[in-house]
Amino acid sequence: MRNLDEMTITQAVLAKNSGIGDARLCEIMTSLVQNLHAFAREIKLTETEWQRGIDFLAQAGAANTADRQQFALISHVLGLSTLVLAQNDRKPVGCTETAAFHVTPEQAPVLLDAGADFGADSNTAKGYLQGAVLDVQGHAIPHAVLEVHRACPHDNGAIDRALLPVDEGGRYHLCTALPDNQHIPHDGPAGQLLAALNRPHWRPAHFKFTVGATGYQRLTTHVFRAGDPYLDADPLFGVRSSLITEWQWHSGGMTPAGTVSNDPFYTLAFDFVLAKE
Amino acid sequence: MRNLDEMTITQAVLAKNSGIGDARLCEIMTSLVQNLHAFAREIKLTETEWQRGIDFLAQAGAANTADRQQFALISHVLGLSTLVLAQNDRKPVGCTETAAFHVTPEQAPVLLDAGADFGADSNTAKGYLQGAVLDVQGHAIPHAVLEVHRACPHDNGAIDRALLPVDEGGRYHLCTALPDNQHIPHDGPAGQLLAALNRPHWRPAHFKFTVGATGYQRLTTHVFRAGDPYLDADPLFGVRSSLITEWQWHSGGMTPAGTVSNDPFYTLAFDFVLAKE
Repeated sequence: MRNLDEMTITQAVLAKNSGIGDARLCEIMTSLVQNLHAFAREIKLTETEWQRGIDFLAQAGAANTADRQQFALISHVLGLSTLVLAQNDRKPVGCTETAAFHVTPEQAPVLLDAGADFGADSNTAKGYLQGAVLDVQGHAIPHAVLEVHRACPHDNGAIDRALLPVDEGGRYHLCTALPDNQHIPHDGPAGQLLAALNRPHWRPAHFKFTVGATGYQRLTTHVFRAGDPYLDADPLFGVRSSLITEWQWHSGGMTPAGTVSNDPFYTLAFDFVLAKE
Repeated sequence: MRNLDEMTITQAVLAKNSGIGDARLCEIMTSLVQNLHAFAREIKLTETEWQRGIDFLAQAGAANTADRQQFALISHVLGLSTLVLAQNDRKPVGCTETAAFHVTPEQAPVLLDAGADFGADSNTAKGYLQGAVLDVQGHAIPHAVLEVHRACPHDNGAIDRALLPVDEGGRYHLCTALPDNQHIPHDGPAGQLLAALNRPHWRPAHFKFTVGATGYQRLTTHVFRAGDPYLDADPLFGVRSSLITEWQWHSGGMTPAGTVSNDPFYTLAFDFVLAKE
């Protein structure tokens, strides 16, 4: 195993890796080495470019935080995330589609009181979202765990999360600020990559939800808004037609929360349909 | 650009990237996306495995330091480094082969006095290395910049560097501790990867040199020692036959530095042959 060149190195690495005990890890590493080497050979990667790549990864590592997960963002930007989500989203027809990865929060989100305003600190119009958590036959899933995320209006890139009460009939209500377009955090290497690729940073406005219930596959998805100018230009490739919704505009009056509003507001009905485990 | 799946995502990303201004960057990103996607499809990467990979990169980023460059080490372990070095090392026959990447030090190394002992703090036997920096016709390259690296005996993973004087005849002398086997730093994710791959951590003993001179390609290489038990098991795939040298053992007596030694010592003659730029 001496004098390895760009053609013989691949087989040498695979031979070295043949002692891996875990069959799945061996399969993953074999494919990783083959494809990584194919990439470097195909474009005849130079030493300078290799160093640039290593530096980029180090910079991404240094900038990585819970709110700005650089490696996850890079995966989204390169379309890897959409690929992985799509090839693992094999649910019966009628179930709500997956649109994002679940990210375990560092701190457990707070449970909102029924009717509480999740977004009272925002200037956007109010939106009232209601619906149910259902199985594919249309039966209510009582007391599911429903988590809503929104982009924090005070810190671009940060995410606020809250748990919503789901009643015994599977029903939930959310009063919040209507989501706005938001851009991918561009204060780190992932944003710099997007800029180097000459691609826009703006995402279509959306809510992100994670819904879990015993005996059902956990669902993490987005709810988009019809008419959004970025629906066909999502830099993270996440838009699915079944998740685009039509919010109803109201000039004011009685809200779904039973209050009276002098300002215009929006309403939307949206059900989450979970697949059995 | 909605409802992308694991088959349509690749073309969608390439279409998005088609606005890249720099033709070489476009070429690199196209190949990167295609091979990254091929990898994820080939092994049907799951969400859990994706998350494990993202976490691994984040851990490598957090552990990355100047002395423990995790991403460079991971590249070495996966054979990518040897591939890149080999496919770019196109020098005339007779030139010294490349065996490593040049790493720009954070601080400029100190210039050793002629005859100084680089390794006085080590318990290993003394080694006296001498030779010349030459062009491929055998002519001396006067006053070349010759940098020697050794593994720091007090901090596994750290590297001591020094500049050696090269005289007008291209000649250099190095008095140092004979290099020992050293293992790849295994206190970080790169070492954990090597352990997960069930591969040994030990490298064959070597010196690392970087040699530069105006008008010549900079050379970064290793000088290995014949008989080393790890020559055929280098976990970083770096051994080249032309760089394996036979040190001469002496029971004691007059050293090449003109001193008298009561202890055994070793000598070696090694010339560095540089290619024109």
